[in-house]
Amino acid sequence: MKYNLRPPLTKKWINILLILICMPCFAQTKSKPNVIIIYTDDQGAVDLGSYGATDIYSPNIDKLAKEGTRFTQAYVAAPVCAPSRAALLTGKYPQNAGVNSNTSHVPGSHGMPNNQYTLAELFKDQGYKTGHIGKWHLGMSAETSPNAQGFDYSFGHLRGCIDNYSHYFFWAGPNIHDLYENGKEVFYDGQYFPDLASDRALQYVEDHKSDPFFMFYAINMPHYPYQPTQKWRDYYKEVEKPRGDYAAFISTIDERIGFLINKLETLGIRDNTIIVYQSDNGYSTEMRAFNGGGSSGPYRGAKSSLFEGGIRLPAIISWKNNLPQNIVNDEFLVNIDWLPTLANLCDFNNLPKNIDGKDLSKMIKKPNTVSPRTNAFWKYGNQWAVRKENWKLIGYPKDTSHKGELDLEHDALFLSNLDEDVSEMENLANKYPEVVEALKTEYMSWEHGQASDIPKKSVVINHLGKSKKIKDIKKLHNKYKNIEVLLDGKRGYNDFSSGQWIGQEGKDLEFVIDLNTSQSISNINLGYLHNPSNWIYAPNTFEASFSNDGKTYNNTIKSNTPSRIHNKNNFIDKLSIKTKQQARYIKINIKGITKIPENNEGAGSQGWVFIDEIIIN
Amino acid sequence: MKYNLRPPLTKKWINILLILICMPCFAQTKSKPNVIIIYTDDQGAVDLGSYGATDIYSPNIDKLAKEGTRFTQAYVAAPVCAPSRAALLTGKYPQNAGVNSNTSHVPGSHGMPNNQYTLAELFKDQGYKTGHIGKWHLGMSAETSPNAQGFDYSFGHLRGCIDNYSHYFFWAGPNIHDLYENGKEVFYDGQYFPDLASDRALQYVEDHKSDPFFMFYAINMPHYPYQPTQKWRDYYKEVEKPRGDYAAFISTIDERIGFLINKLETLGIRDNTIIVYQSDNGYSTEMRAFNGGGSSGPYRGAKSSLFEGGIRLPAIISWKNNLPQNIVNDEFLVNIDWLPTLANLCDFNNLPKNIDGKDLSKMIKKPNTVSPRTNAFWKYGNQWAVRKENWKLIGYPKDTSHKGELDLEHDALFLSNLDEDVSEMENLANKYPEVVEALKTEYMSWEHGQASDIPKKSVVINHLGKSKKIKDIKKLHNKYKNIEVLLDGKRGYNDFSSGQWIGQEGKDLEFVIDLNTSQSISNINLGYLHNPSNWIYAPNTFEASFSNDGKTYNNTIKSNTPSRIHNKNNFIDKLSIKTKQQARYIKINIKGITKIPENNEGAGSQGWVFIDEIIIN
Repeated sequence: MKYNLRPPLTKKWINILLILICMPCFAQTKSKPNVIIIYTDDQGAVDLGSYGATDIYSPNIDKLAKEGTRFTQAYVAAPVCAPSRAALLTGKYPQNAGVNSNTSHVPGSHGMPNNQYTLAELFKDQGYKTGHIGKWHLGMSAETSPNAQGFDYSFGHLRGCIDNYSHYFFWAGPNIHDLYENGKEVFYDGQYFPDLASDRALQYVEDHKSDPFFMFYAINMPHYPYQPTQKWRDYYKEVEKPRGDYAAFISTIDERIGFLINKLETLGIRDNTIIVYQSDNGYSTEMRAFNGGGSSGPYRGAKSSLFEGGIRLPAIISWKNNLPQNIVNDEFLVNIDWLPTLANLCDFNNLPKNIDGKDLSKMIKKPNTVSPRTNAFWKYGNQWAVRKENWKLIGYPKDTSHKGELDLEHDALFLSNLDEDVSEMENLANKYPEVVEALKTEYMSWEHGQASDIPKKSVVINHLGKSKKIKDIKKLHNKYKNIEVLLDGKRGYNDFSSGQWIGQEGKDLEFVIDLNTSQSISNINLGYLHNPSNWIYAPNTFEASFSNDGKTYNNTIKSNTPSRIHNKNNFIDKLSIKTKQQARYIKINIKGITKIPENNEGAGSQGWVFIDEIIIN
Repeated sequence: MKYNLRPPLTKKWINILLILICMPCFAQTKSKPNVIIIYTDDQGAVDLGSYGATDIYSPNIDKLAKEGTRFTQAYVAAPVCAPSRAALLTGKYPQNAGVNSNTSHVPGSHGMPNNQYTLAELFKDQGYKTGHIGKWHLGMSAETSPNAQGFDYSFGHLRGCIDNYSHYFFWAGPNIHDLYENGKEVFYDGQYFPDLASDRALQYVEDHKSDPFFMFYAINMPHYPYQPTQKWRDYYKEVEKPRGDYAAFISTIDERIGFLINKLETLGIRDNTIIVYQSDNGYSTEMRAFNGGGSSGPYRGAKSSLFEGGIRLPAIISWKNNLPQNIVNDEFLVNIDWLPTLANLCDFNNLPKNIDGKDLSKMIKKPNTVSPRTNAFWKYGNQWAVRKENWKLIGYPKDTSHKGELDLEHDALFLSNLDEDVSEMENLANKYPEVVEALKTEYMSWEHGQASDIPKKSVVINHLGKSKKIKDIKKLHNKYKNIEVLLDGKRGYNDFSSGQWIGQEGKDLEFVIDLNTSQSISNINLGYLHNPSNWIYAPNTFEASFSNDGKTYNNTIKSNTPSRIHNKNNFIDKLSIKTKQQARYIKINIKGITKIPENNEGAGSQGWVFIDEIIIN
């Protein structure tokens, strides 16, 4: 919660100094601009009139764009909700904010760590009132709640999505009521959540019209379930579903943003309020979203993808009569930049120093100046991406928009020149190997870029076991049964689902390799994957025993001990057995951890083991 | 829709005659009693004050019991919603009503066949107005809708359960809005469905206070999601969940029944209205119900079980000043009896003849007379049951209340004497084999009792393949891999999940049996299961080829052709290969149907094959 590089005592002293010495400052606080961040949920890259949608009515947001700057190259730091929000609120890459992927609804799951210093804490430390209204999705415990992360006031739901009328968490049952005000469960059975939230947002700005305030208005639309109001359903009744419901949901958002801006105008504080608008990630193609509804327009990808459609989204900043109006800005930015940008627009000093965001305030004040941002990095599950100037390289890309095929053999590294092809439909990696190398180097310069993230050209390894038969196989997991990959001479990519891995959950892997004839064996290497976020851990033990008749096995030999379990994500390593044997048959036994230890991802559950090649020399 | 044994022309003539000749009859219709059936949803066997619950406040229903007869041995004909409702509405066993199991929410799924003659049609044919309010769950198509099954008016949801505020079908996504009035989708976003339904029920009786009416008030509570009103949540706030929410939901029901009875009284038609109250099946122990909340009290079983807790439920009939009051009736009845009983209480003639229900009107009019019902039958999935006097025999019992262990080897036939042990905790089958035999005979006398339903004592079959090895196995399904059961000398029960079956979905089953030495083989029998409701069909082909060296296989021989696919459910049969071979190795290949043909359960999907013993002679 506290910005962790600044000793609390110093901060206390600053506060005391402020109170004792700078009393006149408080009289002036009314002149400090208010800040509202409107953060929508699963809104597609072009799903606004001002972004080119011809079938969506969004007059209020479009007017906001006219009264400020609309960005065409604004990214979020993650293609899904929780890490995108964590990045926004901390000004850091999700990995540095402690939220790599969506937080879980399971009681006791982790949220954004309490020691993260958020926008709310920053504004609070500057004498602002701070309010959160809408979705949270960054933790359900007292320590990870909005109130614990710097918000004086909070109203909304803590989990990922709700039924807007019953306020039940919208996921597999048993379903849970999820509506809280300042940490206390509240019931407004049947009342439309977007209106409950809108009413509170209007009340919040009215209550604080004389204070400077920071309001994080996390609108939970157009995230499924698609529940637009009757008015907008009627408006779009001719539009085919799910597009019609989705479009009606966008207009439902737009109308409520209109209510808010109207309120600011009525209160006479519109000119003293900076409004930032952005979507948290691309539109959803999940089954619960009827596989679509939104649009990424010319871009490839959608929610969960690092193609542009998952992360390049509508973004607007408007500060009437204080910042330029009617600007379309094509410069490059990421949502982590809002923290330093807003801090500078508000003339704060004492900014947190360990952030990843760039201050864009000058560029926003003076259009046609260049963004201070020249590169950015993403890492989400197995996917990663780096953008440097106009070039973008994606590792293990996924296209959730299903606009084209991806062949992991050739497209595991996917290069695009965004100046020439925003669609990312043609992989330029083979054409520009030197650019690929430069971007790989750039990615590796990032603190979270790991050598194991880089797909390797598949080189065939020749060894005694290559293409030999495997028999006497203990039950394999139904999804991972193509056991021949263990002796195909190829190592797997660090993606457990790439088809090159044999996975097992809870149980042993055991089988016999038949070398056809008796061979002299000096060592056996076992390739394994370590990927705690998918509950995949290094094997616990790896043993081999040997036989010449295929019946009696002797000389059971254990491998070296694997690295102890830790949370470093996604690496490939191997275990070795050293021996001197003359044998035809090798019985392999691999045991995974049966119960994931405390303080590891999936603690208490059965762990998975994933192995690729067994290299016999 | 029309009662199918009566030619339409005759009926038309009757109608015309009624209109032409019996005009005075219409003037008298006001004296015909109104009938209201209140049918609750997943309410447990003892979950009312009047049924012994000390922690549930249900004054209105308890008063209804005092103003009529409360039954202690009232059954429903099925332990789940749809077949229970079909039985109620047709006066027939679910199998005769065309609804063996819950109808699906998948568009195009079957509902209750339109040619079923329902209570609504019966009343309509007698000049009544007919209304349905609440849950339907007997079909979503125009032909299977409430309006198509005899109801002049219908308001409610067509699928199995809804969120009571958003009126979304409460199941896996993408979720679907499910609220209809006379077949037209209607939106009442955020309005509490139990109140929408209650308001319409009150309006319905008010609108028809001068007509005779039949109203089927299918209250969709306490079915999950547990969404009681704030008033009742507060009342039970000290009661631990899920019991607290469940109890609050029962009081929510009770309060609305109070509204209705009060309305009848205000309108002055309470004495002219027969009210029947019953639950459709036992309380749910599903995950979505937080594994419980309700209670079956002294009984074993819950929803989906044929133990008493799944089917023996609260039931009340009240006709103030016309039927005896304050009666507790311990006689035996089934919900299929309401149709003839109500028809007789209303003095109808022209009752449908092909029903299974018994007229209980005399027994209700004169307490301490004996029920005309002496036996009843149930069949649900693999479970079946027969009650004859005080004895009850269950085949393949399931205890969804988890009150005790069941060992299929010994408990596949479960006998109880309900006079001495309503708990059904002790299986008397071994103690009273002659009663078991008598009840098996009784069950077999029922038109849906099949020889294949009767568990067989497991007799070990000796044959050439018994306990021999199986090798070269093509991929098995992960759930059905204990391939040794194919040569263990035992046939499987007709329950695919009993552990004695090898199942495969879509793919071939292929493996080699090694007889150890070369043997003379004259025939090979393959046991299979046919169970269309679980998408399990007879194999398409069964072939064997033979080898002495385990390498070269010759003489591929096909079996006889299996019976063509039909909808007769749940039988075991075998396919035979006749041959004259001398061989050590037999390669078996079994192909299932890859795509289930039209007009069969699961049409268009991959079919399953389930096989048990391969008997080699």
